[in-house]
Amino acid sequence: MTRFGIIGGGLMGHGIAVALAQAGHHVAVFDADPATLASLDERIARALERCAMPPAGAGPVTARITAAKTLSDMVVGVDAVLEAVPERLDVKQQVLDALEAKIPAVTPVWSNTSVLSLTEVGKGMRHPQRLVGVHWWNPPYVMPLVEVAPGAETDRRFVQEACDLLTGMGRTTVRLHRDVPGFIGNRLQFALVREALHLLEQDVCDPVTIDTVMRASLGLRWSSVGPMENADFIGLDLTRDILVSLAPHLSAAVTFPALDKPLDAGHRGRASGSGLLTWPPERGEEVAERLENGIRRNLVEP
Amino acid sequence: MTRFGIIGGGLMGHGIAVALAQAGHHVAVFDADPATLASLDERIARALERCAMPPAGAGPVTARITAAKTLSDMVVGVDAVLEAVPERLDVKQQVLDALEAKIPAVTPVWSNTSVLSLTEVGKGMRHPQRLVGVHWWNPPYVMPLVEVAPGAETDRRFVQEACDLLTGMGRTTVRLHRDVPGFIGNRLQFALVREALHLLEQDVCDPVTIDTVMRASLGLRWSSVGPMENADFIGLDLTRDILVSLAPHLSAAVTFPALDKPLDAGHRGRASGSGLLTWPPERGEEVAERLENGIRRNLVEP
Repeated sequence: MTRFGIIGGGLMGHGIAVALAQAGHHVAVFDADPATLASLDERIARALERCAMPPAGAGPVTARITAAKTLSDMVVGVDAVLEAVPERLDVKQQVLDALEAKIPAVTPVWSNTSVLSLTEVGKGMRHPQRLVGVHWWNPPYVMPLVEVAPGAETDRRFVQEACDLLTGMGRTTVRLHRDVPGFIGNRLQFALVREALHLLEQDVCDPVTIDTVMRASLGLRWSSVGPMENADFIGLDLTRDILVSLAPHLSAAVTFPALDKPLDAGHRGRASGSGLLTWPPERGEEVAERLENGIRRNLVEP
Repeated sequence: MTRFGIIGGGLMGHGIAVALAQAGHHVAVFDADPATLASLDERIARALERCAMPPAGAGPVTARITAAKTLSDMVVGVDAVLEAVPERLDVKQQVLDALEAKIPAVTPVWSNTSVLSLTEVGKGMRHPQRLVGVHWWNPPYVMPLVEVAPGAETDRRFVQEACDLLTGMGRTTVRLHRDVPGFIGNRLQFALVREALHLLEQDVCDPVTIDTVMRASLGLRWSSVGPMENADFIGLDLTRDILVSLAPHLSAAVTFPALDKPLDAGHRGRASGSGLLTWPPERGEEVAERLENGIRRNLVEP
């Protein structure tokens, strides 16, 4: 049993807290925003309902999570600290600076970053050798994957400890040889999203069609056979032929008019009622439920 | 009921024949290679076993598919012809030239191309207005998606007829506004594969890790929620922030050392016993079965 401190009680922070507490660990959650902390219990309860956790099981899990009013309260007796604050370099660096002033030099620090360079995140640290990138997927109490990566200064012992602890929790844990922005999963995801936006910008199809294609083809396959196994399966020669033929047509964009256009008009997606699609009030809840059902359906083996 | 001719009895041709015959259509299959034609019945029987089709149902399906020894035999009485020959421009153009000499100008011609430009495929045709891109996914008797696209010369009436026929068969049919190499699905797929190879080339991880990530994260989600709905769900502002931050790091490659290296050493994947992964004899069959099980598991709604 490990005592964790989590900085950031938002979407990822509270979800990771649930995942850790379900595995028997104790978690103290701190957030600088009192409203976020105040709603923590309610959001944890909802997460446990989504896990179909029976009330008898939910009680002990909830009891292992406490809301800490200050950073000083949070660090009392912790074996490891995880930061899950927004993906902004200055925010993460300030949080780590404040944290390091309060914990011993040997306490592991996990960062739930994936888009930022972990090495950059750790640049101002007094003891960057204990910083490990530990990237969870949302919702963490359902999604099995955790990506673990070292920064340039990280001591491999801390990486190994993180992997051992996560694997011991039953997590599907992968270890990157080194830190790259986006780690593995988000690079794969956003390479595909970039191309999807490219198709919209070229007026090949509308956003609904992109999703229909994904759900009725690739989405049906990638839960059971990954892209590297598939490349071997169809043949690396065929794979190369297709890539050589298609690659010059694929997006290499670094700007995204298909997102600028709705955003300039105030359409931010679910939160604003429309985006690439329209979002009547009940759609957000329906999508969350459909997503979690889809994930659970695929967690069976093989 | 429509009478189809299919040119090309290989992997895709025989699979499409099964899909059409299951929907009650009659199919005559021609292949220039006598060995391919000779093994057609056996491969159709195996496909029907994989569909868990009871023998009483398999008989009528098999009876609706005939092997045509010549192109002239194949075209007798056909309402539409589909070509499923290899993705080489010269091969497809030759096949269409020979075909057009034998059928009326009004007979629809469907091409199962996706990687080549459909407009290029149709360049030498006498009546390119009847050429429709109709791209099936493998295996066609399991995968629901068919992508339909017009070439530059295609009459929209032929596109609409193809969509109506496929929708009537219960297919998930999407219609592209225009023909682009890779259509939608293969562009999305190979944008992601390109980035996966990039990660290997940068020594971030090994091929098995790529597949582990895919199967335990994105692959669990994309069968139920596509990338556009997800972008709205998490917010287009966040989506743009991540893309702007990641895109400069993503692959824009048009050459693929991670494939050249194994291919130069004769490692072509499953067929040669090794590729990105190793392929003991039983692995091919195991992957095919795992893939089909995975697809079926996700064909439930929602």
